[in-house]
Amino acid sequence: MTYKTDIEIARAATKRPIQEIGAKIGIGTDDLLPYGHDKAKVSQDFINSVRDRPNGKLILVTAINPTPAGEGKTTTTVGLGDGLNAIGKKAMVCIREASLGPNFGMKGGAAGGGYAQVIPMEEMNLHFTGDFHAITSAHSLLSAMIDNHIYWGNELDIDIRRVVWRRVVDMNDRALRQITASLGGVSNGFPREAGFDITVASEVMACLCLANDLKDLQKRLGDMIVAYRRDKSPVYARDIKADGAMTVLLKDAMQPNLVQTLENNPAFVHGGPFANIAHGCNSVIATTTALKLADYVVTEAGFGADLGAEKFMNIKCRKAGIAPDCVVLVATVRAMKMNGGVAKADLGAENVEAVKSGCANLGRHIANLKGFGVPVVVAINHFTGDTEAEVQAVKDFVAGQGSEAIVSRHWADGSKGSAELATRVAEIADSGVSKFAPLYPDEMPLFEKMETIAKRIYHADEVVADSKIRDQLKAWEDQGYGNLPVCMAKTQYSFSTDPTLRGAPTGHSIPVREVRLSAGAGFVVAVCGDIMTMPGLPRVPSAETIRLNEAGEVEGLF
Amino acid sequence: MTYKTDIEIARAATKRPIQEIGAKIGIGTDDLLPYGHDKAKVSQDFINSVRDRPNGKLILVTAINPTPAGEGKTTTTVGLGDGLNAIGKKAMVCIREASLGPNFGMKGGAAGGGYAQVIPMEEMNLHFTGDFHAITSAHSLLSAMIDNHIYWGNELDIDIRRVVWRRVVDMNDRALRQITASLGGVSNGFPREAGFDITVASEVMACLCLANDLKDLQKRLGDMIVAYRRDKSPVYARDIKADGAMTVLLKDAMQPNLVQTLENNPAFVHGGPFANIAHGCNSVIATTTALKLADYVVTEAGFGADLGAEKFMNIKCRKAGIAPDCVVLVATVRAMKMNGGVAKADLGAENVEAVKSGCANLGRHIANLKGFGVPVVVAINHFTGDTEAEVQAVKDFVAGQGSEAIVSRHWADGSKGSAELATRVAEIADSGVSKFAPLYPDEMPLFEKMETIAKRIYHADEVVADSKIRDQLKAWEDQGYGNLPVCMAKTQYSFSTDPTLRGAPTGHSIPVREVRLSAGAGFVVAVCGDIMTMPGLPRVPSAETIRLNEAGEVEGLF
Repeated sequence: MTYKTDIEIARAATKRPIQEIGAKIGIGTDDLLPYGHDKAKVSQDFINSVRDRPNGKLILVTAINPTPAGEGKTTTTVGLGDGLNAIGKKAMVCIREASLGPNFGMKGGAAGGGYAQVIPMEEMNLHFTGDFHAITSAHSLLSAMIDNHIYWGNELDIDIRRVVWRRVVDMNDRALRQITASLGGVSNGFPREAGFDITVASEVMACLCLANDLKDLQKRLGDMIVAYRRDKSPVYARDIKADGAMTVLLKDAMQPNLVQTLENNPAFVHGGPFANIAHGCNSVIATTTALKLADYVVTEAGFGADLGAEKFMNIKCRKAGIAPDCVVLVATVRAMKMNGGVAKADLGAENVEAVKSGCANLGRHIANLKGFGVPVVVAINHFTGDTEAEVQAVKDFVAGQGSEAIVSRHWADGSKGSAELATRVAEIADSGVSKFAPLYPDEMPLFEKMETIAKRIYHADEVVADSKIRDQLKAWEDQGYGNLPVCMAKTQYSFSTDPTLRGAPTGHSIPVREVRLSAGAGFVVAVCGDIMTMPGLPRVPSAETIRLNEAGEVEGLF
Repeated sequence: MTYKTDIEIARAATKRPIQEIGAKIGIGTDDLLPYGHDKAKVSQDFINSVRDRPNGKLILVTAINPTPAGEGKTTTTVGLGDGLNAIGKKAMVCIREASLGPNFGMKGGAAGGGYAQVIPMEEMNLHFTGDFHAITSAHSLLSAMIDNHIYWGNELDIDIRRVVWRRVVDMNDRALRQITASLGGVSNGFPREAGFDITVASEVMACLCLANDLKDLQKRLGDMIVAYRRDKSPVYARDIKADGAMTVLLKDAMQPNLVQTLENNPAFVHGGPFANIAHGCNSVIATTTALKLADYVVTEAGFGADLGAEKFMNIKCRKAGIAPDCVVLVATVRAMKMNGGVAKADLGAENVEAVKSGCANLGRHIANLKGFGVPVVVAINHFTGDTEAEVQAVKDFVAGQGSEAIVSRHWADGSKGSAELATRVAEIADSGVSKFAPLYPDEMPLFEKMETIAKRIYHADEVVADSKIRDQLKAWEDQGYGNLPVCMAKTQYSFSTDPTLRGAPTGHSIPVREVRLSAGAGFVVAVCGDIMTMPGLPRVPSAETIRLNEAGEVEGLF
């Protein structure tokens, strides 16, 4: 049997005009700003008009720690959304936009897979509706205005050694990680060290994804700290007078993008902050609007539950005043086997013992999620090679944890394959059993917040940080930032900071190497280990084979 | 009497749905990819379907050397297009897209003015349909791939001191003009000098604007020289294997953008290469497509006729196989007065003598344009303070040159004000008197081409260049690039290289300081004097006052 590729399935799909998709959730043609025939932005007037409606149920899809075997979190999110619609529920999907740059390094595809995809897939992996370009522009404007301010006399007395605002580009360009700028003489400014991150790591992205509306966005942009003076007092984007023009550049990017699934159900694809340096969820405005338009909203968070779900709960839900009614934890038999020590090349062979021993990672995520007061269902995202005995081993393990695991075959069968999962998830969401609470209160000191996450989520013994970092946290508390949540930047492959340590490790320490204040987004980033805010391209980038074929179709991107 | 501002007029306009505008020129809804309700891209299928139709008449709008008084070239282009439609002709306008960055420095507005504008004006000055962002992305991908190639072993043996491919960003950011990149150790590459230009200066922009279709675009992108080896042999973008992926990133940007004038007539707004480092005209694909859809196509070229029209004739027309049927040379009474020595503050007072003595500049442009074998009409773009005696002085002068000058009041009255100009231009275009020929043949040596332009257009005595530059030109001729046209990069304010030398100077020398080969775009740039490929922001950038008002409208951009 041969399978169609994701892109073949996507291209064979029967797309409906986006106006028809909008009509399904009550958005009229005038409130849909079309981008081509299959994408549209939702007007702010429409969003304002539904603000007083009651909320639908919110379902978070998260996963175990990722392995090279692949888990299929987005695929499950889309498949569950289609499944809910197929059983007669009014459901929407909310996922993130893809970053352009990385697609030219490794083969891309951030729109699900198999028969559970969001379309148009190619455009989602290229320019889409231009949101990330707008973010790059707004970020670049502020960058230019900072150095321009220094050039024309530096009235704000910025210490050029303490400019913390880095530049961004939406491309994997390691040559720009660290540069010396303003060289070449008087007319080019004052030479200083600088560097570039990739656009998704921009605080502008995080601000846009957490803002309630354009007014809130402008306030957050103005609150961003761009530099410090010699006396270490902060200089804000507002002091540079960049916040108004940045908001103008972001006015369309702030509006959620409506697209459709392969089964012609509505999906918002909006925002895409890095899941390490930022909170890794789609935009608040998309999620809160979807909750007004559908009875069930299925969304996802970046990486595994220790990073993605934790931030979804402690940052996004806290800030947006929303709470999940059910959490779906995606696992695969293959990933259990890898956690159980099987090499990728050997995943094809049945190995029930490896599945059993690999379930420890799954078990800890279940327990962690329950710690937020939310009900958890495990979705076993079915792969064609999975044997019945292996699947049963996972089910038995999950039952032993007091939860339930349901096999879902949306990849192969679309909504037919996810009907059982959808039915159970809807029941749980409707039951009202969720008693969500964040893990820590606002008023807890910053370092204690880090300890709370490290101990309760990572099951570490301690957080290690030198006095310079503790002093910095104290200083921020004194400046009024102590009530912010923390955003942990850590490897996604392990509960520890060692990416090779799979399963459910204990007894480890979490070293905090650096802390950063994202005063506009509204969190303190704790950098634990190396984090990469500007990726590089591999030896043979996929860009080398990406091209248009004779039919004008994109080849090599997927 | 108070006048409405451009933006007030634009906002008060009654826009028609873009599908209705498309229908006027025979483009069906399926062939229009909408971007909002008032912008659309034209499909390649449609463009292919009209390729065998006969061409309409091509009308070039150019101007005298710009002065701070303003000439209104785009305004006249739009006003003439509306005028032609109003007298019953089927006419289209083709103009350039605006660069985003400069709008945050000085107040923007590149869509005409008064009652002769293209709308939506705000979006044209912001992200529009994302074309320039796509160009920035494609350019950035190649930039990253070059340094990535060096990082992974430099198989092509690139001399890192001879990487000629600079990076780009669509922002006025002087701090990036000259940088040292790849600092920070082994994992970031090999430190080297680098720098950024503004996106409109990218050779990718020039390639896109001169390409006939996507296939031609990919060939041009592959032909671009990005670096040299130690033996000075060139390394092409094709060697880096970037041309295919760059074309994928540009596939939508390559399609012309349809918008409308205030009078709901169709306009293509597409492409926008710098008028110094590149040829400064809208895209070939937009112009050649418009010629198939309308009986009259009105287009413009950057800066004054010595730079813009010269390049339009010698580069764009030569490459695209098109020829103007009539040239409209825009002049204003105010500009004549400034050329006649009047200061900007004193332009309000009648001064017929100054008008007369300022006409020398106009006279030389008329003679130069006739040298291309094309008929010339002078359009006096009427300002409210112009007196009858002043206007008559210009008319008399032009008559003395064997041409005619027509007053046009499109700024104040729209198509009613440009009816006389439109009628006469249509007559001339229809008459078939145009016997267009470029100024020099392909086979002329490169340095002689520069001398030909300098003597015949600038009326200089000589071109001065040191032996290093002459040797470089010889080397390119030996490599097979001798048949390319030359693209002069010179101040737009004077026929000479001294921007303060107004009127019609003679006896001057043209110093060529540097030559650059744009092998993909297909021209050799001769840099005469300082040219700026990355502007800076002024002391008080307009960005400081740009913002959204309570109604959600953009303020401060215009």
